[in-house]
Amino acid sequence: MHSSRIRKGSRIRKGIATVSLSGVLDDKLDAIAAAGFDGIEIFDNDLVASPLSPREVARRCADLGLSIDLFQPVRDIEAVAPERFPAVLHRVRRKLEVMTELGATVFLACSNALPDAVGDVDLSAEQLHAVGELAASFGVTVAFEALAWGRHINRVGQAWTAVERAGHPAITLAVDTFHMLARGDDAAALTGIPGDRIGFLQVADAPVLDMNVLEWSRHFRCFPGQGTLDVAGVVAAVLESGYTGPVSLEIFSDVVREADPFVTARDGMRSLVFLEDQLGARLSGALRETLTAAPPAPQRTDVAFVELAAPAGSAYAELLTGLGFHIEGRHRSKPVVRWRNGGADVVLNEQPAAGPAATALGLVAPPVSDVAERAAALLWPAVDRTRGAGEADLPGITSPSGLHVFVSSEPGDADDWRTDFVPSTEAAPEHGWLGLDHLDVTVPSDVLNQELSFFRTLFGLEPETPEEYIQPQGRLRIRALRAKKGDLRVALNVSETGADVPQRHGIPQQHGISQLAFATADVVAEVRRARANGVEFLRPPENYYVDLDARFALDTALLATLREHGLLYDRVGDGELLHAYTLPVQGGFQVELLERRGGYDGYGASNTHVRLAAPR
Amino acid sequence: MHSSRIRKGSRIRKGIATVSLSGVLDDKLDAIAAAGFDGIEIFDNDLVASPLSPREVARRCADLGLSIDLFQPVRDIEAVAPERFPAVLHRVRRKLEVMTELGATVFLACSNALPDAVGDVDLSAEQLHAVGELAASFGVTVAFEALAWGRHINRVGQAWTAVERAGHPAITLAVDTFHMLARGDDAAALTGIPGDRIGFLQVADAPVLDMNVLEWSRHFRCFPGQGTLDVAGVVAAVLESGYTGPVSLEIFSDVVREADPFVTARDGMRSLVFLEDQLGARLSGALRETLTAAPPAPQRTDVAFVELAAPAGSAYAELLTGLGFHIEGRHRSKPVVRWRNGGADVVLNEQPAAGPAATALGLVAPPVSDVAERAAALLWPAVDRTRGAGEADLPGITSPSGLHVFVSSEPGDADDWRTDFVPSTEAAPEHGWLGLDHLDVTVPSDVLNQELSFFRTLFGLEPETPEEYIQPQGRLRIRALRAKKGDLRVALNVSETGADVPQRHGIPQQHGISQLAFATADVVAEVRRARANGVEFLRPPENYYVDLDARFALDTALLATLREHGLLYDRVGDGELLHAYTLPVQGGFQVELLERRGGYDGYGASNTHVRLAAPR
Repeated sequence: MHSSRIRKGSRIRKGIATVSLSGVLDDKLDAIAAAGFDGIEIFDNDLVASPLSPREVARRCADLGLSIDLFQPVRDIEAVAPERFPAVLHRVRRKLEVMTELGATVFLACSNALPDAVGDVDLSAEQLHAVGELAASFGVTVAFEALAWGRHINRVGQAWTAVERAGHPAITLAVDTFHMLARGDDAAALTGIPGDRIGFLQVADAPVLDMNVLEWSRHFRCFPGQGTLDVAGVVAAVLESGYTGPVSLEIFSDVVREADPFVTARDGMRSLVFLEDQLGARLSGALRETLTAAPPAPQRTDVAFVELAAPAGSAYAELLTGLGFHIEGRHRSKPVVRWRNGGADVVLNEQPAAGPAATALGLVAPPVSDVAERAAALLWPAVDRTRGAGEADLPGITSPSGLHVFVSSEPGDADDWRTDFVPSTEAAPEHGWLGLDHLDVTVPSDVLNQELSFFRTLFGLEPETPEEYIQPQGRLRIRALRAKKGDLRVALNVSETGADVPQRHGIPQQHGISQLAFATADVVAEVRRARANGVEFLRPPENYYVDLDARFALDTALLATLREHGLLYDRVGDGELLHAYTLPVQGGFQVELLERRGGYDGYGASNTHVRLAAPR
Repeated sequence: MHSSRIRKGSRIRKGIATVSLSGVLDDKLDAIAAAGFDGIEIFDNDLVASPLSPREVARRCADLGLSIDLFQPVRDIEAVAPERFPAVLHRVRRKLEVMTELGATVFLACSNALPDAVGDVDLSAEQLHAVGELAASFGVTVAFEALAWGRHINRVGQAWTAVERAGHPAITLAVDTFHMLARGDDAAALTGIPGDRIGFLQVADAPVLDMNVLEWSRHFRCFPGQGTLDVAGVVAAVLESGYTGPVSLEIFSDVVREADPFVTARDGMRSLVFLEDQLGARLSGALRETLTAAPPAPQRTDVAFVELAAPAGSAYAELLTGLGFHIEGRHRSKPVVRWRNGGADVVLNEQPAAGPAATALGLVAPPVSDVAERAAALLWPAVDRTRGAGEADLPGITSPSGLHVFVSSEPGDADDWRTDFVPSTEAAPEHGWLGLDHLDVTVPSDVLNQELSFFRTLFGLEPETPEEYIQPQGRLRIRALRAKKGDLRVALNVSETGADVPQRHGIPQQHGISQLAFATADVVAEVRRARANGVEFLRPPENYYVDLDARFALDTALLATLREHGLLYDRVGDGELLHAYTLPVQGGFQVELLERRGGYDGYGASNTHVRLAAPR
C-alpha cells in the first residue's frame, strides 16, 4: 500500500552480508532474496564451504535479483613485514580471480589485527597501493576499513590517512558504523571525506556494553534500532558526502547464529526501513527523496484495553469482580465482554485460545491508517481477523512473540474501539482507579530483541535501561519501554531458567501478557476493598518489614499500615511507591495495584526479589 | 574410604554463601547441608524474602549442623558524606539486631561502590571505627572487603590501610580471591598482614575475560578449578598468615542461577577438595595436616579404549571393518567385542543402550585404587556395574554429562582391561595406525563447566584455550583438555543451536562420544584403503582447494594429492596436518583420520567451518 511512494532507481540500495545469517550459502541467498534486499556481501568462509562454484553463485544471485556488492576474502593485507608481502599479493591475486568469476567488483580489506602488524602508516599506504594496482588490473576496487581492534589502524581517521597516502584510485575507504561508534567516533570523524572516495558502507548497531570490543562485536552486534548506537548519524553523513553505494548490514550475534535465516533477513530489512525513517529528519531535501518513505510513528500512544482469553472456567471474571470491575458492555458480534474500573479497561474474550495470542493489547494511536501502513512497510504481519458490519476498523498487528496489538482511534471517532460494544445497564461504582499503569509481556529469550524492535520501530516507544534480577530458579531479565507521549508502558520479561529445575517459584513460563499493574489514588483502600471481596494478595514476610525499617527509618504509622495490608514499599528521593500483587491465577497471571506518590517514576525494582521468592 | 585421613576439629572449615545457589533459603540450606559443608554465609536478600524468622533460620541451621559464619546485610557503610552517616548507623544497628537473632558474629562490609562515595581513606577509617564500636556492642566483628569495582577502595591494600587506620579490634580485613585477582593483585599483596586481623576468606575463580569487572563478576564467577585464576596462591597466603576461619565459596554465574542447588552445592564442595589438593604443595608442614587429603591425580593418563553401544543393526562394526579394524578378542562374561587396528582399540558393546552412557572411555591411569579413592573424595559418582570372577578391577566413574570412564592398570598387570577379553584367532593385519589421537565428547551447554571440572580435578588434565566456531545453525564451542603426561586428549563440544531450526547441518545433538580421531603414519594410504573398503568420507568442495592454494601457495603435487583424496590441510609454522572425516553414522558419529607432520600440535581449527557446512 506504500509502494506508490517508492521511487525505484533513485532509492538507496539495501544490502546484507551473508555472515549475518545462519545456514549454508544457498539457504542464505534464498532468505535474503525473500526479504527483498537488493544485494549481498559474500563472506569468504560461506563460499569456501559451498559446493556451488563462484560462477554458479553468480548465476544464482542473478536469478534471485541480487547483486554481489562486496567480497571479503583476505585479512591482514597491509602493515605486513615486507618479506611476507609477496605471499599477501599471491593470496589477493587468487581471490581476485574468484571475484572475476563471481562478478564482484568491491573487495573489503580490514586493517591488520595481528600482534606482529607493523605500525607504520606509510608502509600500510605503500602496500595498499600495490594491492590497489593489482585489484585495478581485475577491474576491482578495494574498500579499506579500520577494524575497531586493528593493531595500529583502528579508527576511521587512521584508515582515511592510509587511503589518502596510498594515492590510488582503486583504494577507497570503507565506513562501518559499528567500528566507528565502538571507538567513540561519530559522524564528525567523516568531515571532509569526499563521497566518491568512500567505497562501501556497512551498518550495525549494538547495545552499549563495557567489554572487550572484539567480543562485543562477535556476540552482541545487532541491527539498527535494536541497539543504542547513533547509526543514523553516521549513515546520514556518508550519504550527504555523496556516497551512492549500498547501505549494507553486517551483524553477528549469538542470537542470530541460532535463528532461522528467513526470520533474520526480515529483521534486517525492517531495520533498514527504520533506519531510513530516522534518516528522514537528518537528510537534505534531494537525498530525502531517495528514502523509502513510511508514515511516521504515531504522535502519542495510549492504552485502550487489554484483552485476555477467558473461556468457561477461567478465573479472570472472578478476579476482576473482586477487584471492583463491572461489566461495561458486550461486543456486537463476538463473545467478548468489556469490563471497566474507573480508567481501566479489560476485555475478556470467551472464545478458547492459547499461547501469546490468548492476550491482546489495544492502543489508541491515531491516525490508525498510518500505523497500519507503517506496520506493512516494516514487514510486521497483520492479524488475520474478521470485522463485523458497522464495527470499528481496528488494524491488528502480530508482534514477534505472538501478541496481538490492535490500534484504535480516539474516543468519539467512528473507529473508536468502544463503538463495538453495546453498553451494559450495570451500575458503575467508581473507585479511585486511574487506569493501567503498565503491563508485563513475557517473551522467549530469543525473541526479546525482535519484540523490542517491534514496539520501538512501529510505535516509537523508548527503551529504558535493561534490568536483571535473580529469581529462585534462574534469571529474570526486563526491558521496559514507554511512549514518548501517551501513557503506554510495556515491560518485556524474559525468564531464563534451567529446563530441568522444578518451577516451584519464579515468574510464569507462559508467554503473552503476564501482569497488569493498575494505578490507584489510594492503594490501601483498594487492597482492603479487594481483600474484603475475596481477592488474595502476596504477603511479604515479616523480615521484609524489618528490612524496610532498616533501609528507610520509616514513620511508625506508615510502617504499621504497610505491614497490616501486606504492601510493598519503595522510595527514591521524594517519590514513594506503595504496591501489592495478587496471587497468580491461570498459570501465573498477576495483577499489581500501585500508588505513586511524589513523582515516583520506577517499578519498585528493589522489591522484585521478594515478589519472585513468594511461594506460588 | 578416605575419611580415616580426615582430622576433624583441626581441619579447614568449608563454607558457602547462600547467594551461590538457586532456590529460596530453605532449599539452599538443605542443599548445602547435603553436600557436607560446615557453614554458610547468609545473603540478606535470601533472608528478607524468607518466611522463616531469623531465629527459625538459626534453629534450622543448627539442626542441619551448619554454622552461620557471615552475614552481609548493608552496603556502602563508609566513604559516606557525614550528614548521611547517621542513616548508615541506623541501618547497621537494625541489622545487628537481626544478627543477634541469627547468632551470627561476622558482618561483611564491602567498600563503597556508589558514584558519590567520598575518596578520603581517613573518613572511611573513622566511619569504620564507628561501625566497629557499634558492632562490638553486639559482640560482632566486621570484615571489610575491597570490592573490585569499589569507587575509591578497590584493592586489598587500600582496604587494609582503612582497617589499620580504623584501629578498632572489631574492624578486620575480608579477603576475596576474586576481587583481589581481578584487580591484578596476588598473594604478595597480603604480605605482612597478620592472620588474626583477617576476619574472613571468600574464594571464587573465574575464566579470564576482558570485560567490565562488575559484569564479569556477576555472570562468570565460578568455583575454584573451573576458572583460571590462582585461587590456591591467595588461599595459601591467608592460611600461612595464621587465619583460622572458614574458607567460604562465594560465586554467582548465569549457569549456577539456572541450576539445581543440590548439584551446585556438590560442585562447590568438590571444588574445595580440589583446592585443598592444590594447597598441599604450597602449605608448610603443620598446616598441611589441616587438609582433607585425597590421593593425588594420576602421574600419567593414557587412552586404553573407547566403548560404543552397538546393538544388532548398528553401523559401527561395518565402519570399523572398513577402516581396517579386526576383532582382537571377546569379553569373558559380556556381549562385548574388542576391535583393534594397530595402536587403536575400540570396544563394541552389543547390549542396547542410549544416551551418553551408550559410550564409555577406558583410561590407563595407575594406581587404579588411588583414582577410585580420589573420585570418591571429589564426590564423582561410581558407575554401578557388575564384575565377573577373575575379571580386572576397572573402577568406573560417571562424568557429569553421563559418560562412563573406566580406569585400568598397565599392560601385564592383573587389573589390565585386556585380561577380560579372550583373544580371537583372527589374523591382525597391521597398518600404520598409531592409536587414538583425541576424542570429542558432546555435552549439554549447562554441563560444560562441570565436565571440564571432572577431567581437570580427577585426572589433572589441563584445559586449552576455549574455541568457538560458527556452524550453519548455531555455535560450536570447544574446550579441549590434555594430559600433562600421557596421550589422552579430550575435546568437549557444546552445540548451541536454535531449538526450532531444522538440523540439516551441524554437529550432532546426541551427547556422549561423538567423534574419534585416529593418528596414522600415512593418511593418504589409509583413506585410500578405507575408501576401497566402502567407507565414505566428507568431500570438501572445490572452492576449498582454491582457497588452500591462495592461503598456502601449496606445492602442486601436494595440492593434487589433497584434492584427489578429499583431504583437509592445515599448516602452522613447519607443522602440517592432513586429515579426513568419515560421513556420520548412527545419528552423527564420525571418525577422523589424521597425519601430523613436523610437530603440528593442533586440531585443524581453520577447517572446522568446512566440516560443519558439509551436508549430512
